[in-house]
Amino acid sequence: MTSQASADSTRDRIVAAATAEFSRYGIAGARIARIAKAAKTSTERVYAYFGSKEELYRFVSGRELAAVAEATRMDPTDLPAYAGRVHDYFAAHPERYRLMAWGRLELGDTERAADDPIRQTVAHKTEQLRKAQEAGQLDPAWGPLDILVLVNQIAASWADQPDIAAAGIERDTFLTARREAIVTAVERLFPAQRPA
Amino acid sequence: MTSQASADSTRDRIVAAATAEFSRYGIAGARIARIAKAAKTSTERVYAYFGSKEELYRFVSGRELAAVAEATRMDPTDLPAYAGRVHDYFAAHPERYRLMAWGRLELGDTERAADDPIRQTVAHKTEQLRKAQEAGQLDPAWGPLDILVLVNQIAASWADQPDIAAAGIERDTFLTARREAIVTAVERLFPAQRPA
Repeated sequence: MTSQASADSTRDRIVAAATAEFSRYGIAGARIARIAKAAKTSTERVYAYFGSKEELYRFVSGRELAAVAEATRMDPTDLPAYAGRVHDYFAAHPERYRLMAWGRLELGDTERAADDPIRQTVAHKTEQLRKAQEAGQLDPAWGPLDILVLVNQIAASWADQPDIAAAGIERDTFLTARREAIVTAVERLFPAQRPA
Repeated sequence: MTSQASADSTRDRIVAAATAEFSRYGIAGARIARIAKAAKTSTERVYAYFGSKEELYRFVSGRELAAVAEATRMDPTDLPAYAGRVHDYFAAHPERYRLMAWGRLELGDTERAADDPIRQTVAHKTEQLRKAQEAGQLDPAWGPLDILVLVNQIAASWADQPDIAAAGIERDTFLTARREAIVTAVERLFPAQRPA
């Protein structure tokens, strides 16, 4: 193995260990020593790669944000199907929803710069929605930011409350029924454009 | 002051200090020593009243849950107005939304017993919705739990992302426009029963 390949693989292990640690404990609760141990490296190497615990969190949560966007692909002409994909993604990966949720609680307003990945994603998606409105594919009476936030909220209805499920119902059966309600709700608000 | 009045007032100060501390730092991040100092008492007194940090969190978050329910009064015959009140409540008290949000992240499924206040509130509200469906006031095609969760998700759209607001827009102006979108969305899904 070349030394570059070795460095890459250490860095990858740090990122994987940090993702698991932050998802479980949040930013304040995460311990760089535990991340280093799980990644089979030293705390010094972790700091050498990422500078600080908060920078490491920003890196792994930005990476996860890109992974969600890639896996769920928002299509302004079929928002009900997009909402279904978001639901499926977090039903399959509840720990990834947790990873993002800690950042919303622990990082304040003032710390979110203009180049923040969340701000950039929101700007990109609202622009997609605005263009669909101009093209007559979505009701122009809604603000594009309202459409984005409403669809995401509805889609994530069950992402952070897996434990509300009635006792005795199997988790997959329960979540499949909830998915239908989510897709129906988004269809009523923002109907998909069906080919004529 | 009698000794009972003195005890009550110490306990009240602990509850107020704990509410602020948990809202800011979460459960793991909260420090009993800071709570005791802010409440002008000792850590021993805090433990004597509440047993543990987690029990203290459960007490203050249960109290807050009751306060939200009281302030927003869910009316199954007018869910759009209810959603507007939930939005208003958290716009005015973002720290109270944070207080509840930490519990969703930090307390796992297994720790939520049948007598948990959140479970009890959900059971009570779904029963109210089910009765309204039986009385022909709400579309019976929806599951009552879906109605409850969808309305709450839509109503809380802006409760945990105050920083998404476009730069340069005054917060109250921004949130008033978002409130209109919330009420409109709930009206489309679950129309209020208007007197004939």
